[in-house]
Amino acid sequence: VIPDDIAALAASIPALDSAAMGHAVDRQLRLTKPEGSLGKLEGLSVWLCGVQGDAPPRPLANRRLVVLAGDHGVARLAVSAYPPEVTRQMVANFLAGGAACNVLARLLGVEVRVHDISIDGDVDGAPEALTRHKIRRGSGSIDREPALTDDEADAALRAGVAIADEAADEGVDVLIAGDMGIGDTTPAAALVCAFTGAEPVDAVGRGTGVDDGGWARKVAVVRDSLRRSRSRRNDAVATLAEIGGADFAVGTGLLLGAAARRTPVVLDGVVSGACALAAAAIAPGVRDYLVAGHVTTEPAHRTALDHLGLAPLLDLSLRLGEGTGALLALPLLDAAVAALREMSTFGEAGVSGPRD
Amino acid sequence: VIPDDIAALAASIPALDSAAMGHAVDRQLRLTKPEGSLGKLEGLSVWLCGVQGDAPPRPLANRRLVVLAGDHGVARLAVSAYPPEVTRQMVANFLAGGAACNVLARLLGVEVRVHDISIDGDVDGAPEALTRHKIRRGSGSIDREPALTDDEADAALRAGVAIADEAADEGVDVLIAGDMGIGDTTPAAALVCAFTGAEPVDAVGRGTGVDDGGWARKVAVVRDSLRRSRSRRNDAVATLAEIGGADFAVGTGLLLGAAARRTPVVLDGVVSGACALAAAAIAPGVRDYLVAGHVTTEPAHRTALDHLGLAPLLDLSLRLGEGTGALLALPLLDAAVAALREMSTFGEAGVSGPRD
Repeated sequence: VIPDDIAALAASIPALDSAAMGHAVDRQLRLTKPEGSLGKLEGLSVWLCGVQGDAPPRPLANRRLVVLAGDHGVARLAVSAYPPEVTRQMVANFLAGGAACNVLARLLGVEVRVHDISIDGDVDGAPEALTRHKIRRGSGSIDREPALTDDEADAALRAGVAIADEAADEGVDVLIAGDMGIGDTTPAAALVCAFTGAEPVDAVGRGTGVDDGGWARKVAVVRDSLRRSRSRRNDAVATLAEIGGADFAVGTGLLLGAAARRTPVVLDGVVSGACALAAAAIAPGVRDYLVAGHVTTEPAHRTALDHLGLAPLLDLSLRLGEGTGALLALPLLDAAVAALREMSTFGEAGVSGPRD
Repeated sequence: VIPDDIAALAASIPALDSAAMGHAVDRQLRLTKPEGSLGKLEGLSVWLCGVQGDAPPRPLANRRLVVLAGDHGVARLAVSAYPPEVTRQMVANFLAGGAACNVLARLLGVEVRVHDISIDGDVDGAPEALTRHKIRRGSGSIDREPALTDDEADAALRAGVAIADEAADEGVDVLIAGDMGIGDTTPAAALVCAFTGAEPVDAVGRGTGVDDGGWARKVAVVRDSLRRSRSRRNDAVATLAEIGGADFAVGTGLLLGAAARRTPVVLDGVVSGACALAAAAIAPGVRDYLVAGHVTTEPAHRTALDHLGLAPLLDLSLRLGEGTGALLALPLLDAAVAALREMSTFGEAGVSGPRD
């Protein structure tokens, strides 16, 4: 059941500003280039005008990667190529600045915020801010128990909204969704199956690189979780609690909160894709504030994006998570904004338009 | 016939440094991420090590867009949606900084060098440097006459080598190929047909957006040009002279010269794709120094990339030219370099590797 405050927030998500989008379309037609020749960049620029409510759009100057870290009981079932303690170790790596997401964020001028949402333990030497939104130590093993209690799911949604509100209050122009959690593509696949009707054998992939045996275990876990939770399938929040996890519920709240504050979000891989499905089940309007940074090699990711009607900007065969694919798409958004803001019009440049 | 100096240059193109590439592969395996999880970025980083002869690669600090501008006699046959004078007007726009390529180059820290190779006239108020490598005023109308004399083709190849040498001498780390010329996708399609055996009806597209009648005229021009020049098909330089143009021959020389100086080049659309086919016909080793920035909507472009064995990094439905698609791919090269240079290894970060 959607808690009242989240339902009110969902109802408050504004539509895109169609007047600003109309101005953007008009301006695109006057810029010194053939009509439509900037391809997907043109659509991105028009969309950002709708999000911001102004044309041309302002540059995405303040950009923040939010990495939600959590452990999953299913990781003990060897559904991943990596042992569960790697979640904690990688979060320490994020804090030290040595992971792929840190390198890309530095390159692209993006601030990194890491949150321990549900790590099964403590990160050595971590600042207090890391655990400010911690929900529990590890989410339940979804093959045989709920990932979260219903109260924890509600608290996690609210934590996600709080993270989005904090970003909006601090003037963040674009959020980048990142995740870290050994085993997390297993609940992600379960959620994608629950929200789209996909079959586990079609949705489950090899995550970070599990072998044939691990893949078969992963399919079995997803199937068991779906069977166990089937009576609550029509309840999006209960589905997050049953077969998702604390990190997924926070991620869902983050997307809802961002949309309510007109903050665009660049989605990363199958984890943020699963959160987007849950958020769209709670509030369909959330989709208007999302862009798919890329498509990964995980089959459930493509399924999720198709269901959401989102076309990925990049297809680079990434399967890393951490927000890396979303970060790589950011220069395309910057380019879309810059082209609409800075290009000369035919009139300004004295360039002839098309033949009659 | 390949002139002796160009043949000697072609013979001097070094192989990629396999030792550096081996070191890069080893380092990728030790970085804190699942093996292969950075997808195409990993291959890019290894390739750049091979190009530079060192691992990890140095950042692509000095980056230059080279825009080769030229007119084509076929533009008078209305094979383009735009009138021929737009070539000149757009070059003035480049010099004023108002075109799409200028905006993207500013965003990405890329220097822009524009060369009037074969504009059919003069650009008002242009600096002397613009015409330093000018070959002629407009290339011939390839449906009924050669684009260039054989001597002009040789001179154009040498001009391209000179532009590449100048860049290498000035410490340019990566070149971006750009073009401007109303009607230029027509000779580009003719060259792609000549070098790959593709049929005109399959190769010809709508360029910047020509209508059905223009498309049919374009196909007829390509077919006529191929028929007229068929006796010289086995001679790559003669093919450039017959059905290409001065800008294409300079572009071909640029790619040969860049490879000889170990300077990587990001290809843009069908024009640079056609130049790459010509360059590879003269010196197959040139392919080792090329990366395909993107794939456009022009069918001959995909044909050219397939023939060259190059997979495009981006697919954003661009059809603008000017090097815009190649510019948009540059952040992916930067990301590939940064990841290999800056990410922590498993040992440095104290992160566990995969399960046994």
